Amino acid sequence: MLEIGGESIVLTHDMLVEGIHFLPDADLADVAWKLVATNISDLAAKGAEPIGVLLGHMLSADDERFLEGLAEVLAYYRVPLLGGDTVSGSPPRAFGLTAIGRAVHSPVPSRAGARVGDALCLTGKVGAAMLGFEALRDGTGADSIVYRRPMARLRKGKLLAPLVTAMMDVSDGLLLDAARMARASGVTLAIDRAAVPIATPEDRRDDALRWGDDYALLFTVPPGIALPIRAHRIGVAEAASATPILLDGKPLTETDGLGYQHQ
Amino acid sequence: MLEIGGESIVLTHDMLVEGIHFLPDADLADVAWKLVATNISDLAAKGAEPIGVLLGHMLSADDERFLEGLAEVLAYYRVPLLGGDTVSGSPPRAFGLTAIGRAVHSPVPSRAGARVGDALCLTGKVGAAMLGFEALRDGTGADSIVYRRPMARLRKGKLLAPLVTAMMDVSDGLLLDAARMARASGVTLAIDRAAVPIATPEDRRDDALRWGDDYALLFTVPPGIALPIRAHRIGVAEAASATPILLDGKPLTETDGLGYQHQ
Repeated sequence: MLEIGGESIVLTHDMLVEGIHFLPDADLADVAWKLVATNISDLAAKGAEPIGVLLGHMLSADDERFLEGLAEVLAYYRVPLLGGDTVSGSPPRAFGLTAIGRAVHSPVPSRAGARVGDALCLTGKVGAAMLGFEALRDGTGADSIVYRRPMARLRKGKLLAPLVTAMMDVSDGLLLDAARMARASGVTLAIDRAAVPIATPEDRRDDALRWGDDYALLFTVPPGIALPIRAHRIGVAEAASATPILLDGKPLTETDGLGYQHQ
Repeated sequence: MLEIGGESIVLTHDMLVEGIHFLPDADLADVAWKLVATNISDLAAKGAEPIGVLLGHMLSADDERFLEGLAEVLAYYRVPLLGGDTVSGSPPRAFGLTAIGRAVHSPVPSRAGARVGDALCLTGKVGAAMLGFEALRDGTGADSIVYRRPMARLRKGKLLAPLVTAMMDVSDGLLLDAARMARASGVTLAIDRAAVPIATPEDRRDDALRWGDDYALLFTVPPGIALPIRAHRIGVAEAASATPILLDGKPLTETDGLGYQHQ
């Protein structure tokens, strides 16, 4: 976050590393898409609109596919490639992306503003990316688009920014990301397990709550506020207790396997 | 380059990859220094002052040294780490850095503005980094600091920005970078070989003109302009001819081995 000439500029940087964030046989068009979309999702969670991106690109035999995917995702989000660096290298390949955005509302939402009594809400289902990952991994031929080409909720983020007390995107798992919001805000988030919308069969609910990569927006709003978009009320912010999360009243903390603790 | 709220914001991104840009046994404190300094040098060549940096950091056993060098270089340039991403990975390690700067003069200098008749100037000697690299490679114990910890010419860049017609930093070799400036500007740069200040013995002059990593500023100014800093006049911009460079009248092009064609 930078204040420049009276504007709030949001900057994000993510790296994707072969073998950690994508498999060696992944279609690099999907990797390029994900690299851009995950950074733009960070902007969405700040209620920001993208101004441009900078790419750190390691050359490989699959560059043509990478560049095709890059062109697609940049065109989709109408965001220009402002520059970057191209380097040679060898596996594991690593790609970096910096996204620059302009916040539409000040103060810019963070994960730190949830207050006791706020409603905890989620813009969409969790678990679809998990099913996509499993389809790819198991070669079932089932749809994997949600995993391969995640969507940033730019429009929703901009509409919500003036209303929320806290907001973030769910990238590492709903419960884990909610725990981070709870700790940053100094509250405990009490989540109603059955109220969480899932894209999976009911018997996978616990997995869906712990899988990331869906990039729905998780946010808190004061009780009684009318929302300009459809969202699901999944819990409430309570006074801080011994754990950041209560799931159907059961205390949970980060060591309970809440999601993907990535590095 | 972005115009935000009436300010000209300069963005640069560079990656350093193990085995390509640094050796596996390099001190990661030096790698961190170089990663930041080379990006800040790009800002210097735009007459910009740094606002902050974003780091893409791949974890390894040498993180402590990396973070020590990072703290040193950020303190030296008084620039804050605004954010970034930390990822796990395995060799070859890759690091990325985005630097954000604010241009002090508009229009912001580029490599494309040199005009016929302009003087071609250089702020400092070339070849010192080459000697440092060779000292490290050969284990001679001779000084290698210029290679390991390059300096960005921020003050000079800011002072020169209002005066120059074109400016860039010399990162890949004086002749190669001058050829890039010549092509971008649509001129031929006639360089006086003996006028180029070198940090090496005279018998290494040709090597010094082709080695990068010194990060002196190369710039053109209209003839007769008094400069606010000491610089060396090494040539003149002439009408475009068949080659971008004339060295003591001899036509040279990129295929003649002008420098380090890195990727």
